[in-house]
Amino acid sequence: MSTEPLRIGLAGLGTVGAAFIKLLEQKNALLTRQCGRPIEVLSACARDRNRDRGVDLSNVEWYDDAVKLAEAPNLDVFVELIGGDGEPALSAVKAAIQSGKHVVTANKALIAKHGVELAILAEEQGVLLNFEAAVAGGIPVIKTMREALAGNTVSRLYGILNGTCNYILTRMEEEEIGFAEVLADAQRLGYAEADPTFDIEGNDTAHKLAIMTSIAFGTQIAGDDIYLEGISNITLADIRAARDLGYRIKLLGVAQKTERGIEQRVHPTMVPIESQIAQVDDVINAVVLETDLLGALLMSGPGAGGEATASAVMGDVADIAKSRPGRQHVPALVTPAKELAPYQRARMRSHEGGYFIRLLVRDEVGVFAAIAQRMAAANISLQSIVQRDDPDSPEKDSKAIILTTHATMETAVRQAIADIESDGHLRGSAQVIRMEPAG
Amino acid sequence: MSTEPLRIGLAGLGTVGAAFIKLLEQKNALLTRQCGRPIEVLSACARDRNRDRGVDLSNVEWYDDAVKLAEAPNLDVFVELIGGDGEPALSAVKAAIQSGKHVVTANKALIAKHGVELAILAEEQGVLLNFEAAVAGGIPVIKTMREALAGNTVSRLYGILNGTCNYILTRMEEEEIGFAEVLADAQRLGYAEADPTFDIEGNDTAHKLAIMTSIAFGTQIAGDDIYLEGISNITLADIRAARDLGYRIKLLGVAQKTERGIEQRVHPTMVPIESQIAQVDDVINAVVLETDLLGALLMSGPGAGGEATASAVMGDVADIAKSRPGRQHVPALVTPAKELAPYQRARMRSHEGGYFIRLLVRDEVGVFAAIAQRMAAANISLQSIVQRDDPDSPEKDSKAIILTTHATMETAVRQAIADIESDGHLRGSAQVIRMEPAG
Ligand SMILES: NC(=O)c1ccc[n+]([C@@H]2O[C@H](COP(=O)([O-])OP(=O)(O)OC[C@H]3O[C@@H](n4cnc5c(N)ncnc54)[C@H](OP(=O)(O)O)[C@@H]3O)[C@@H](O)[C@H]2O)c1
Ligand SMILES: NC(=O)c1ccc[n+]([C@@H]2O[C@H](COP(=O)([O-])OP(=O)(O)OC[C@H]3O[C@@H](n4cnc5c(N)ncnc54)[C@H](OP(=O)(O)O)[C@@H]3O)[C@@H](O)[C@H]2O)c1
Repeated sequence: MSTEPLRIGLAGLGTVGAAFIKLLEQKNALLTRQCGRPIEVLSACARDRNRDRGVDLSNVEWYDDAVKLAEAPNLDVFVELIGGDGEPALSAVKAAIQSGKHVVTANKALIAKHGVELAILAEEQGVLLNFEAAVAGGIPVIKTMREALAGNTVSRLYGILNGTCNYILTRMEEEEIGFAEVLADAQRLGYAEADPTFDIEGNDTAHKLAIMTSIAFGTQIAGDDIYLEGISNITLADIRAARDLGYRIKLLGVAQKTERGIEQRVHPTMVPIESQIAQVDDVINAVVLETDLLGALLMSGPGAGGEATASAVMGDVADIAKSRPGRQHVPALVTPAKELAPYQRARMRSHEGGYFIRLLVRDEVGVFAAIAQRMAAANISLQSIVQRDDPDSPEKDSKAIILTTHATMETAVRQAIADIESDGHLRGSAQVIRMEPAG
Repeated sequence: MSTEPLRIGLAGLGTVGAAFIKLLEQKNALLTRQCGRPIEVLSACARDRNRDRGVDLSNVEWYDDAVKLAEAPNLDVFVELIGGDGEPALSAVKAAIQSGKHVVTANKALIAKHGVELAILAEEQGVLLNFEAAVAGGIPVIKTMREALAGNTVSRLYGILNGTCNYILTRMEEEEIGFAEVLADAQRLGYAEADPTFDIEGNDTAHKLAIMTSIAFGTQIAGDDIYLEGISNITLADIRAARDLGYRIKLLGVAQKTERGIEQRVHPTMVPIESQIAQVDDVINAVVLETDLLGALLMSGPGAGGEATASAVMGDVADIAKSRPGRQHVPALVTPAKELAPYQRARMRSHEGGYFIRLLVRDEVGVFAAIAQRMAAANISLQSIVQRDDPDSPEKDSKAIILTTHATMETAVRQAIADIESDGHLRGSAQVIRMEPAG
């Protein structure tokens, strides 16, 4: 085992990069003892050399070009904390691997888009490609899937993977404030980006989900071939109705193996209020892995933030520091990347599950029965059907009808709603929220 | 990297050992692909050679003596699944290490009692000592603490570490059945041992807690120097009172760093009903790690059972299969075992926290005020105090008085109760349950 320092080149000195350097400064002795050797940042790069980042870079060699840094000969590990699925992150990571360096990255966009290609390169070169921080921040979900679950076969996985969405949904429920107002507040507080689309429409969740799906099911990563539905349509009426029924609404990413391929979906989901996942509040993330040997394993913790993310990056770096020199066998996606199966997407229409349906109707005799009949005609077995005043509706003669169904096909639900609509009973469009069994 | 099979000697073919062999049979191809080499059980031992264990042992060399098996020259890894902190497990594990083999064990009793000594031996020999299955069964808590949390400083950890206790408490609450009745039923169903003392009095929890404490705080393992209180005194009245206050009762193992040393305690605990840990039901285990970088990380899953435990053992074996030959640097307890600090136990009297106190009193004017006064005299700040009928009491003129306190010292609580007792108001003894903040 080497007791030489592990030499790091660090690209990106923003929220995570600066936190990583601080962590290394503050916990130097602890890390050296844990790893059996020191960890040192030899060189670094960012866009602006003159920006004060609150860390001492006087002994660090500066590069303006991330690719040049990645190619430098005197480094063992290239840590990529720039972000983005394009340049310079992509070329820099490739250059690092090709020059025989291990790579650690927190970049979900890059792994979701180029993960397979990069994993193939890394396996050819016998170097490690570690990306714990790319999924669920500080939660060691990649390590768990890669290492702890050896021999397990995953059947379903799901999680709360976006802190912004979970923060918004938590505050909507706790404070009874509408979506737009909470979003504006979240932006003011720095919990949501100025352009929040990528978070609230589910794309960020989809990227993280796609990476986990590949590891779990041994298929290629398909971050842009996922059914997406964000949280911007969720109203206080939905949240209240959910609570009355004993549920909470969470934005989940769900992946499961079905006979028709792999179902990957991101959508607002009703989870039972007495489930662990329903108690995951604010910006906290959570992942549940269902396997043949374990049943369900749940992990929750901070999904973002400089320190928590730097902690995950450090875990990846420490694993490399502890490992002995020579070729490594730890396929980045568990399955050797060349053997990953093509991804076959199961169509959402064939999704089978329980549904929550909220319909705004004219308050007339017979509507209730007409709706129940349409559901029966579509072969949908109802769990409950209740009618209540709709305080949010401007029209006085409106009622909300709230239905929950037993497991049924998405096509059947869509058909029944179309039929109810053509009967002329609806005011506005129907709200459909999937229900997910959760432990 | 070697592509030779990893050669295993397996001692113990009971619940976990047989499940391990089955897992290896059923997932051979998957494991070989994940590890880059096959894993093979070359030899095995148990007490009774002729017992049918539902697995094919025809190609496995049989040993009657675990120590002989551990010394055999043709093995890479010794897997110890016999159990117990004495012989033959202890000598066999030592012999395996001394002959240069890696060791994987599920034996919490052994690690709690001899872990430091074994870790020193393993580090001297440069072999791995892995014991994921010894704490919280299938939950990868040891791997997380050892590897993922590199650089984190733990401030507190707590968990539900005994499935039997959690099963009993869950059923008591859900079905409103008393402790003795649920225990008898659990014994009938195989969820509790014929002699359940070790589980229900907290010793098993203490062993697991002690192992985590050592890893978290870098101190020697002190499995028998822990404040212990089991669940046998918990009544339905406590469970109902807890629920009315918005709490649930769980048997927790808690370890935290204080100025006066390390506080390790196992006791029934009130946790807020809207916390994740309160939703951990039945035989499921859970662990929460609070660190400076992550805030809180929670993991929950199956804490026992043949398959789940074998899964954790397999994770440990797979890590060895993937590692390259040569000396290893992965101190078993994170801190190199020779550098572990002595364990300094903080006295329970100095424990500071919130308390739930249930007193059975004669229904007389002035009792309420007298009690409140005694609490004030002891400088205890009350959160709530309510009086209610006690349906469980045989005496008609009894009332229950239920108090909850803000954070205060254990000594103060004990003193106040002694004073109330000497005032002559109490019927029977006071019930005191600690309250623990939980996310
Ligand atoms: N922040 C989180 O909580 C979090 C959580 C999980 C994962 N991540 C991932 O971690 C990565 C970094 O995130 P972050 O929040 O730290 O981002 P950030 O604060 O925006 O920092 C990005 C860094 O990259 C540098 N950079 C940008 N373009 C560059 C270029 N062309 N050449 C060299 N350096 C360049 C920037 O330089 P200047 O400072 O000079 O502008 C900055 O230091 C991303 O992949 C992100 O998805 C972040
Ligand atoms: N079961 C669980 O859910 C679980 C969970 C976590 C950790 N663990 C730990 O895993 C270990 C094994 O537990 P288990 O439930 O599998 O126990 P078990 O079913 O009682 O099996 C023990 C095995 O050890 C063998 N054995 C006993 N004494 C022996 C001796 N002197 N020499 C050689 N073999 C001997 C027994 O042989 P025979 O079969 O011939 O009697 C049996 O095969 C224990 O340390 C336990 O704490 C178990």
